[in-house]
Amino acid sequence: MPVNKSSHPLRAHLEEIIALTDTEFDYIASFFTHTKKRKHQYLLQEDEIASREYWVIKGCVKSCFYDLNGKEHILSFAMENWWITDYESFIKQTPSKLYIDCVEDVELYYITREDREQLTRTSHKMERFWAKKSKFGRIALQNRILSLLKDSTEERYYQLLQQYPSLFQRVSKKLIAAYLGVSRETLSRLQQKHK
Amino acid sequence: MPVNKSSHPLRAHLEEIIALTDTEFDYIASFFTHTKKRKHQYLLQEDEIASREYWVIKGCVKSCFYDLNGKEHILSFAMENWWITDYESFIKQTPSKLYIDCVEDVELYYITREDREQLTRTSHKMERFWAKKSKFGRIALQNRILSLLKDSTEERYYQLLQQYPSLFQRVSKKLIAAYLGVSRETLSRLQQKHK
Repeated sequence: MPVNKSSHPLRAHLEEIIALTDTEFDYIASFFTHTKKRKHQYLLQEDEIASREYWVIKGCVKSCFYDLNGKEHILSFAMENWWITDYESFIKQTPSKLYIDCVEDVELYYITREDREQLTRTSHKMERFWAKKSKFGRIALQNRILSLLKDSTEERYYQLLQQYPSLFQRVSKKLIAAYLGVSRETLSRLQQKHK
Repeated sequence: MPVNKSSHPLRAHLEEIIALTDTEFDYIASFFTHTKKRKHQYLLQEDEIASREYWVIKGCVKSCFYDLNGKEHILSFAMENWWITDYESFIKQTPSKLYIDCVEDVELYYITREDREQLTRTSHKMERFWAKKSKFGRIALQNRILSLLKDSTEERYYQLLQQYPSLFQRVSKKLIAAYLGVSRETLSRLQQKHK
C-alpha cells in the first residue's frame, strides 16, 4: 500500500509552518532517523556533547540536572510534537549540563547536528522553520524566567495545570514537584486545594 | 571626508557573524534608524505592542516588570552591542508584559518589525545573522533558568560579577538587587564579602 505522505506525522508538523511538495518532504525526511526508547533510558547525559536534536512522535521526555546536594531540577518536559536537546551543548558543542531521559516509552525522530546544518544550508524552508521554532522556544524560556522571578509556587502550579493538564496524568508527582522546585508535601497540598 | 564603511559600528557587529560587501551593508543599514534617549526614558512600556528591536550603540538599558506588590524585577540588561526588545510582544504582536527603559543616556539603532521581516526575506545573510543571534539568546535564557533553579543568591551575585564586571560600575545597587531578586541589604552584605 502506498504511504500517504501528507499524513506523515513529521510532515503534518512541519506544514504547520512551511508548505512542502512531496519531493521536498522526501528530501527533508531523508535527514531524520526514527528511534524508540524505553522509560528511564537516556537521550543525553551530563558531560556528553549533544549531537542530536529530537522530535517527539509519542511519549514524554524531560531535561533535568542535579544540584550539589543531589536534588533533581527539571528544566523542561517534551511531549508529542516537541523538539528537545540541550541547545547550549548542541549549538556550542560544549559538554552538556543536562540529562535528557524518558519519562515514558517514547518514539522519536532525530537529526544530527551536521545534518541539521546541511539541511539548513540546502533548504531555505527548513531554515525558516527552525528560525520560527527558535523564536517560540525563546518566548517560552522568557516566560519561564518571568514566572520564576515573580510568581509564587501556587501560581506556577496553577499555570502548569492550565497549560499542560495532560502532564498531571502522565507524569509522577515527584517529577511535577522537581519541575516546580517544591517538596512532594507542598505539591500534595496544592493539589488538594485546586481539586 | 568619506565614511570608512568597514568601521561603522553596526557593520563591525554584523561582520562578527556574516561577511558583507559595501553594497550589502548599505542595503541593510537603510533599514535601521539612529536614535538617542536620555536616562529614564522608555523604549517600551507595559501593554504597548513592541514594534521595534533595538541595538545598543552606547549606554545601558534594562527590561523589567513590576509584580502585584509594585516590586521591580529585572529580566535583563543590555549594553553596547546587545539587541533588546520584548521578544514575545515583538514576535506575537501581543501587549508587552515588560518595560524597557534607559539606565544611562543611550544611543541606539532600531529596526521595525515590518522592516526586519522584509530584510529577513530579502537578505539571506541577515536571516542567518538573526537565526544565530536567536540561538545565542536562547542559550542565555536557558542558563538564566538553570541558575535561578539551582544557584544561591551568593552564587548568582558572583556569576554576574564575573560575567559583567562593568555592570557594577555603571548600574545602581538598587538595580543589581532587582536583577538578583534580593534586598539592598543582602546585596551590600554580598559586596562586602566579595570585595
